[in-house]
Amino acid sequence: MAFTIYDASVPPLVYMLENLGHVLTIGETHARENGADAKAYLDARLAPDMFALIKQVQVATDMSKGCGARLAGVEIPKYDDSETSFADLQARLAKTIAFLKGLDRAAFTGAEDKAITLKFPNAEFHFNGKDYLNNFAIPNVYFHITTVYAILRHKGVPLGKPDFLGRRA
Amino acid sequence: MAFTIYDASVPPLVYMLENLGHVLTIGETHARENGADAKAYLDARLAPDMFALIKQVQVATDMSKGCGARLAGVEIPKYDDSETSFADLQARLAKTIAFLKGLDRAAFTGAEDKAITLKFPNAEFHFNGKDYLNNFAIPNVYFHITTVYAILRHKGVPLGKPDFLGRRA
Repeated sequence: MAFTIYDASVPPLVYMLENLGHVLTIGETHARENGADAKAYLDARLAPDMFALIKQVQVATDMSKGCGARLAGVEIPKYDDSETSFADLQARLAKTIAFLKGLDRAAFTGAEDKAITLKFPNAEFHFNGKDYLNNFAIPNVYFHITTVYAILRHKGVPLGKPDFLGRRA
Repeated sequence: MAFTIYDASVPPLVYMLENLGHVLTIGETHARENGADAKAYLDARLAPDMFALIKQVQVATDMSKGCGARLAGVEIPKYDDSETSFADLQARLAKTIAFLKGLDRAAFTGAEDKAITLKFPNAEFHFNGKDYLNNFAIPNVYFHITTVYAILRHKGVPLGKPDFLGRRA
């Protein structure tokens, strides 16, 4: 089967969200085994003006569902962003993965040329589907997942790149 | 023109390496303007057993040239890994970007199904081209570029996600 924009979006997004779930499990286990407050991990950040771990996971999943939905031409699922625990974050990952897996491959046909507009309070970005994927959605997802990893590493959690890459054998 | 595995590899790799160059320029400028030793930035790391900034850039470019070369079926350029300054890192980015831009789009035809084997001292990974791209090369590139950003943020460099995303206007 030919490679399409579906192959460059849904499978890697699912793969990386699954890996993020694994990384979070290791973080949660580390907190528990060291008698640390999980909240100290969930609220940790790398710099005062960077997002804390919970928000990093929220944005990674927002970018993922937005990407799948926009390219497929379906409505973006709304979440209430009320997560306060590792379990809540895992549930958010699970529902995002389920949403992405449920998208119809055929709906992505020609999505590389689709006009996509993102509106923010202070800016409006216009993309075609290809540039939206390559220059916005995917970099954002990796940015936030890698930052979760970096936050946990900085907290002393014993993670290695194989955890991030899904090579966990 | 249809979306192919070329579109999911060469353009985003070039885009992100260009963004990394921009991020490094801001880091270098920050060191100079604050009378700091550039070496302290280049040798900085987020955890004792993580790579320092120079090595992060080296691996990001290694993963990028390896990805382009393997998918296109050409020899991987060899670098001597002797960078010791921001200028050296910019030169490494420039030659990697030039290599990627020089690859022939047609050479990527069917690369999603190509068998790709990576040999490491303690492991051997077998991929098809699609999984090599999605589950190894691209995640690695983003991992190392994001980590450079995180290291510089942690050093107090005034960066924002727009710098990472190439939205610098």
